[in-house]
Amino acid sequence: MVNSHEYYMKFALREAEAARDRNEIPVGAVVVCNGRIIARAHNLTETLTDVTAHAEMQVITAAANVLGGKYLTGCTLYVTVEPCVMCAGALGWSQVGAVVYGASDDKRGFRKFAPEALHPKTVVTGGVMKEECAALMKEFFKKKR
Amino acid sequence: MVNSHEYYMKFALREAEAARDRNEIPVGAVVVCNGRIIARAHNLTETLTDVTAHAEMQVITAAANVLGGKYLTGCTLYVTVEPCVMCAGALGWSQVGAVVYGASDDKRGFRKFAPEALHPKTVVTGGVMKEECAALMKEFFKKKR
Repeated sequence: MVNSHEYYMKFALREAEAARDRNEIPVGAVVVCNGRIIARAHNLTETLTDVTAHAEMQVITAAANVLGGKYLTGCTLYVTVEPCVMCAGALGWSQVGAVVYGASDDKRGFRKFAPEALHPKTVVTGGVMKEECAALMKEFFKKKR
Repeated sequence: MVNSHEYYMKFALREAEAARDRNEIPVGAVVVCNGRIIARAHNLTETLTDVTAHAEMQVITAAANVLGGKYLTGCTLYVTVEPCVMCAGALGWSQVGAVVYGASDDKRGFRKFAPEALHPKTVVTGGVMKEECAALMKEFFKKKR
């Protein structure tokens, strides 16, 4: 079963909404392997008092746990916002097959600050459902002000 | 109590030796706050089947847990090898006061691949006990071949 990027991004968006509902910066991620979502996570930095608890970090750990191996070569990671340097570094170590993100992050995104962080074979697609992904972030920070 | 960088790096080296003894790439780290070691960790990527389980990632989480807050502003992180992109990104989020590392890592180190990953106020010192730190790595990879 092969679904569209939008199909899987909607699940990542649901995770981002779950983060927002916990008063966390609304970022969500899922890992897809052979058409199946094998792991999902959302940002939990406040809940866990841990700067490393980004959605991507948790979903990498969870997916490896499901697969029983460290590498996510055959998997695609969907995330609502462009990964930061930390998460891109982790994705690089994971050798994930593909990364699909929604909204760009010009202030913290890896493309500007660590453009070579991912594995050279990792296929990157940005901008999938970017309006919906960005809207969640904008609403969150507007309420915070 | 203020001790020398070498004093604390020896504890990080002990952690690196503990990693080696588990057949893990020998990298160790400690976090020091007000002269006291509040957290220590070593690389556990193989044991945990998790590419994110670098010494620095674990010690950041552990130190935040001890302090009860996400930020390590008043702390110094000692690590036997120059942090990678992922760990430097995490250290950036933590706003750690200082990073002291031993051996350089020209292949994976953040200085080459994400030179702006750390917080601008973080003080970085490299090369502390670098021979001892590098020797552990060299011996490990020599045996692996």
